[in-house]
Amino acid sequence: MAAFETQVKVRFGDVDAAGIAYFPSIFNMIHRVFEDMWEFHVGVPYADLITGQRLGFPLENSNVDFKSPLRFGDTPQVVVTLDKLGRSSLGLRYRFYQGQELALDAHMTTACIGMDRMKSCAIPDIYRAALLSLSEESDQ
Amino acid sequence: MAAFETQVKVRFGDVDAAGIAYFPSIFNMIHRVFEDMWEFHVGVPYADLITGQRLGFPLENSNVDFKSPLRFGDTPQVVVTLDKLGRSSLGLRYRFYQGQELALDAHMTTACIGMDRMKSCAIPDIYRAALLSLSEESDQ
Amino acid sequence: MAAFETQVKVRFGDVDAAGIAYFPSIFNMIHRVFEDMWEFHVGVPYADLITGQRLGFPLENSNVDFKSPLRFGDTPQVVVTLDKLGRSSLGLRYRFYQGQELALDAHMTTACIGMDRMKSCAIPDIYRAALLSLSEESDQ
Amino acid sequence: MAAFETQVKVRFGDVDAAGIAYFPSIFNMIHRVFEDMWEFHVGVPYADLITGQRLGFPLENSNVDFKSPLRFGDTPQVVVTLDKLGRSSLGLRYRFYQGQELALDAHMTTACIGMDRMKSCAIPDIYRAALLSLSEESDQ
Repeated sequence: MAAFETQVKVRFGDVDAAGIAYFPSIFNMIHRVFEDMWEFHVGVPYADLITGQRLGFPLENSNVDFKSPLRFGDTPQVVVTLDKLGRSSLGLRYRFYQGQELALDAHMTTACIGMDRMKSCAIPDIYRAALLSLSEESDQ
Repeated sequence: MAAFETQVKVRFGDVDAAGIAYFPSIFNMIHRVFEDMWEFHVGVPYADLITGQRLGFPLENSNVDFKSPLRFGDTPQVVVTLDKLGRSSLGLRYRFYQGQELALDAHMTTACIGMDRMKSCAIPDIYRAALLSLSEESDQ
Repeated sequence: MAAFETQVKVRFGDVDAAGIAYFPSIFNMIHRVFEDMWEFHVGVPYADLITGQRLGFPLENSNVDFKSPLRFGDTPQVVVTLDKLGRSSLGLRYRFYQGQELALDAHMTTACIGMDRMKSCAIPDIYRAALLSLSEESDQ
Repeated sequence: MAAFETQVKVRFGDVDAAGIAYFPSIFNMIHRVFEDMWEFHVGVPYADLITGQRLGFPLENSNVDFKSPLRFGDTPQVVVTLDKLGRSSLGLRYRFYQGQELALDAHMTTACIGMDRMKSCAIPDIYRAALLSLSEESDQ
């Protein structure tokens, strides 16, 4: 397995009146990690996918366990693995660890679409090996 | 059943480069509807719950199907029903209808906590009847 | 003078760890009021301007005095008047009143552009009378 | 002069339907840079200032020229200098350069307050030398 790992930071603008991360901000962090996975693991800047290749990845299902709160100033480590890679479907799992503790466990399933016609579109072959290497059972 | 219903509006700041609602913005809309449910269905302004009574409702689990995109200018009707009411647990379902079409089906489970000690706390009895009336099987 | 007036609400997602509105959220409120001014004062839904007519209004200058904090649950009254209407330039003033108190005084100057070529574009004549009626010296 | 410099990135969630940065997102970037200036230039994590020392920096005035749009994927260099350091007032200037081009020129004046009493508070002496070193006329 070659999970994609990165670190995020809980910013002042992410926390609510109780000083813990407001969940829409957590979903924004998940999207930022998705962008970084494309750029730093697959090797294509997400802006190129969207603006250049006109591919988009709308969310189809999101299932998230919020196990412990993230607080202002926390810098959780995020581990991204592959749940499923279909022809035009991409399921990723995001685990946020604050120290040893699993704070968040998110499964996010996206579709690949062509943005000009807003229709389902095959995930290009050149990206599949990098995505498959994120499989939790992968030997790569 | 007495579902709580309200309408939301997809604003310029909610949409992405493809002109459809960015999912963190949809989660923000869901929280706004949660606030309105407390104010207009239960009868207590959400700011009073938080600031006055020092109760908070952190999210424990979120499971959402995104069935069709919401676009800039859309004004989906949101139907809120009760999934589960426990001692300190509140599960609500939010369905967003754009015209006749079910665009979004969200199940959001929150805990009730006392914000001063950040500990689990019983949902006050005075609010339970109003919450129970949102049950899909309710005769109320 | 026929100022456009509306009310906004400071939501849970708008406030920071101190319980006061985070300023990027206030700028988001200002944009929402701008959208409502187009829809309810001028008479054209903002989504039609953008998506239909392909006009956009990027910000050129913003000058804002934050006089007193807005708190969670506040519902300030917003008064919109015209600073300047040029060929392709629109300057609006937004005053947020919390009760009798002026909490915020914002001057926002936007350009009108055609979004397909991203070039400066005249503000259509059919909208000018409604915009001019917002002038603080107007007799209309 | 020892300007604080850092780089920001325009994310998918920052851009609007025209593919350019939505201005409330730009203000959020400015706040993130403010946090980084405290942590990496002054040497105190912003979360420690807020949560530990109970100091806050509400915005008093913001004056921003938006000279050219920031686009999805842009990574502007941000140069932070000091406009003014008073007893309890801190004015900073943020210039965003996209390549050689000045895209944004922002002057942001904040007050220092004690968050427990929400009253004006002197900026602690231990931070003043680092802040003064950002003066555009400084020899430090």
